[in-house]
Amino acid sequence: MTRPQHAPLVQFPVVDDSLQIGGVPLARLAARVGQTPFYAYDRGALSARVAELRRHLPPAIALHYAMKANPMPAVVQHMAGLVDGIDVASGGELRVALDTGVAPCDISFAGPGKGDAELASAVAAGVVLNLESAAEMERVAAIGARLGVRPQVAVRVNPDFELKSSGMKMGGGPKQFGVDAELVPALLARLGALPLAFHGFHIFSGSQNLKAAALREAHEKTFALALALAPHAPAPLRTLNIGGGFGIPYFPGEERLDLAAVGAGLAEMLPAVHAALPGARVVVELGRYLVGEAGVYVSRVIERKESRGRVYLVTDGGLHHHLSASGNFGQVIRKNYPVVIGNRVRGGERETASVVGPLCTPLDLLGDQMELALAGPGDLVAVLQSGAYGLSASPGGFLGHPAAAEVLVGPRAGRSGAAS
Amino acid sequence: MTRPQHAPLVQFPVVDDSLQIGGVPLARLAARVGQTPFYAYDRGALSARVAELRRHLPPAIALHYAMKANPMPAVVQHMAGLVDGIDVASGGELRVALDTGVAPCDISFAGPGKGDAELASAVAAGVVLNLESAAEMERVAAIGARLGVRPQVAVRVNPDFELKSSGMKMGGGPKQFGVDAELVPALLARLGALPLAFHGFHIFSGSQNLKAAALREAHEKTFALALALAPHAPAPLRTLNIGGGFGIPYFPGEERLDLAAVGAGLAEMLPAVHAALPGARVVVELGRYLVGEAGVYVSRVIERKESRGRVYLVTDGGLHHHLSASGNFGQVIRKNYPVVIGNRVRGGERETASVVGPLCTPLDLLGDQMELALAGPGDLVAVLQSGAYGLSASPGGFLGHPAAAEVLVGPRAGRSGAAS
Repeated sequence: MTRPQHAPLVQFPVVDDSLQIGGVPLARLAARVGQTPFYAYDRGALSARVAELRRHLPPAIALHYAMKANPMPAVVQHMAGLVDGIDVASGGELRVALDTGVAPCDISFAGPGKGDAELASAVAAGVVLNLESAAEMERVAAIGARLGVRPQVAVRVNPDFELKSSGMKMGGGPKQFGVDAELVPALLARLGALPLAFHGFHIFSGSQNLKAAALREAHEKTFALALALAPHAPAPLRTLNIGGGFGIPYFPGEERLDLAAVGAGLAEMLPAVHAALPGARVVVELGRYLVGEAGVYVSRVIERKESRGRVYLVTDGGLHHHLSASGNFGQVIRKNYPVVIGNRVRGGERETASVVGPLCTPLDLLGDQMELALAGPGDLVAVLQSGAYGLSASPGGFLGHPAAAEVLVGPRAGRSGAAS
Repeated sequence: MTRPQHAPLVQFPVVDDSLQIGGVPLARLAARVGQTPFYAYDRGALSARVAELRRHLPPAIALHYAMKANPMPAVVQHMAGLVDGIDVASGGELRVALDTGVAPCDISFAGPGKGDAELASAVAAGVVLNLESAAEMERVAAIGARLGVRPQVAVRVNPDFELKSSGMKMGGGPKQFGVDAELVPALLARLGALPLAFHGFHIFSGSQNLKAAALREAHEKTFALALALAPHAPAPLRTLNIGGGFGIPYFPGEERLDLAAVGAGLAEMLPAVHAALPGARVVVELGRYLVGEAGVYVSRVIERKESRGRVYLVTDGGLHHHLSASGNFGQVIRKNYPVVIGNRVRGGERETASVVGPLCTPLDLLGDQMELALAGPGDLVAVLQSGAYGLSASPGGFLGHPAAAEVLVGPRAGRSGAAS
C-alpha cells in the first residue's frame, strides 16, 4: 500500500535540480522579480494548453477564456491571441477584456447581480450580455433604449440537471444563476418583443470535473436542452455556450481528465447539433483548465523550525496570497496542493515538513507534512497548479503583509529574439 | 422543538423598524457613505465593549487590542484611546499602530515569519518583539547590534496544553507559533547573554472560545506555566501576556461568553501571580471580542429572484468582501451569520430567502434560507457580527468588483457637538 500521489506534473522542466519557469531557473527568476512572494505564469505552458485543446476538440468548437480564473492583464492579453473569445464576470473584468481588442461580439458577460453601471458599460461596448433573469432582461432593454444602442444578449439557462462528480455545481435545482429551463420559453417570447439582439444560450452545469464520462453526459443533456429551447427563440442561435467544467488534478490521487475522450464525445454530438442549429457556433468556456497548470506561487523560507518532532518551513508567503492552497476556498477537507522546493527539487536529503506562512493563524498552511527536499532560510518553496483562482481569490490585505508580485514569463512567439 | 436561534443582538437599536449604526438610520448612512457595499463600525459599541470588560475583569488586568481583527486606521485610533496597548502582526500593522502615538513599550509584535525589514522596523521603533524561536532571537540581536539599539523582547511560549472548546487552537502539540515550553529555559539562558531587554512571556492557547470554564482552565495552566518558567528568566517579568480567546456568538445556538465568570476566575488567580511575579503586568490581548460585535456589512438588493421554489436576494456584496460570512474562512460546516433587512428589520410580511452576491460561484452565499422581512431591489441587507476578520480577511479583488467602503460612525466622546 502506497499513499495516493499527486499526478505527474511536466509543464515545468527541472534543470540542474531547479524548476524552470518560462525557461528561467527559479532562483534567477526570483532575483529578476526582485521580491518574494510572487506568482509566475509560463507563456509557453498557456500556449501549449490551448494547442492541446485544439488537437483534441473538434475544429468547429470555439474556445473562450473565462478570465475570472486569472485576470492578470498580461495573461488576458496573451490568451486573447490564442482563443476565440473572452468571458467576463464584472465591469472591472470587462475593461481588461476590451483592452485586448477582441471583438465585442466575442466577449460575453455573465453574473447574477449585475449593477446598472455594469449593464450600461456592456451595452455601450456591444458585448454579449448573458441574461440571468427576466428582471435583468427588462433592465437591459431600458438601458439600451436610454443609450440608443440595441443590446446584444444571450440567455443563461439554469438547466434541470447537474454535472455529476463536479467540484462545484452551477446548475440543477434552485439556483441564483440563469433562468430556470422551464421558464425560458416564456422569457424568449418576451425577449422577441423587446429591442434586443438575440445571440443564443449559455448553459453551464458545473466546474472542476476530472471525469470525461460525466462531462460527456452533461454535454448530451446540454445539447438536448438547447435543441428543445431553440424553437422558442426569436431568432436563430448564433452561439451556444456549453460552459466548461474541465478540471485539473490538484490533490493526491486525482487523475488527469481524458481530453481525447471529451473531444471524441463532442465530435459525435456536433453533426446533429449543427444540423438542428445551422449557423450556431458551439463555445466551450474554460478558465481554470486553460491557466491553472501554467502558474506557480513562490515564497522564500524565512526559518526552518522544529517543534515537538515536526519540521516547519516558515515562509514569507501564505494564505493571504494563496487561499486555495491553504484549503480555505470551497474545500471541505484540506488536502495538499503539489509543492516542491523550487531551487532544489530532488535535493540530497529529503524530509517530511510542513510549509506555513507568516500569519498568526493555524489556517496559514501551504503544505501539511509533505515529503520535500531538506530546505532552510533562503530556499524557494513553489506551490504548483497555482495559475487559476490564486492571487485574485485571496485576502491580500490580511494582517498587513506586503503584496505578492505577478509575472508572465517566457518568450513571445513569432518574433526573433535578437537581430545579431 | 424549535430550531436553534442566533443569540439576541442588542448593540444596534432598531428605531422605526430600521437598524441604527452610531445613531444613524441605515438608509441614511448608506446615502452618507455614497455607495454600497460598505462596512460600518459603531464607535459607541466599541467603547461600551471596553467598558464592559473593565467592569468584569480585575482592575490590575491590562487590555491590549490585537489589531489584526480590524486594522482600519480610524478604528485603531479609537481603540488606542481606550486600551492599554496594541498588538500587531506585521510591519504594515506596526506602522498603523505607531501612528496612534501609543508608547512603543505598549506595542507588541508577534508572528512566526517576521522578515528582516520588519524586525529592523520594530527594533528601531522600540516596540516589544515576541520572539517565536531561538533563530529569530539571534536575528533580532544581530539587528539590534547593527542599529545600535537594544531590542525589547518577550518570549512567545508554545504551551504544552491547548484551550479546550476553542474555535482555533494556537498552542499545544507541535506548532509554528512560539518556543515549545520545554525549550524555553535554554532559550532564556542564551537570551540573558545577548544584548536584549527582556520583558516577559506571551502565552496564547486558542481563540474564539465561548466557555468560561475552558478559559478559566487555560488561565490556570497559563499562570502555572509562567510561574514555572519565570525563575529561568534573565530579569523579572515586566509583562505576562496571557492571550485572549474570548469568543462572540456567530451562529444559531451559540451562547454569549459569561464574562463575569471569566473575570471572577482571574480575580481569584491574580493575587498568587502578583505575589510570585511582583512588578509583572498581566495583559489580556483581545481582537475579535473587542470589535466583532460593533460592525455590520451592508449590501443592497439588486434583484429578488425566485428559482424552483426558493427565493434569492441577489445583492451587490458578497464573499469578496466578507469571506467569513460565506463560510469559507476556517469553517468546516457553513452556518449563517445573523442577517437582517436593515431598513425593514421586522417588516410586514416575512419569508424564507437566501442572500447571495454578484459572483459567478455558488460559494457566494451570505445567508442560506433565512427568515427575513420581504425585500426587493434597493433594500439593504445587513450582516451582523461583522466587525472582526471581515474586509481585511476577504479576497477583495476576486472577479473585479468594486471595493467595499469602511466607515466608523458615532460621536466622539468628550467633545460638545456644537457651540451654539
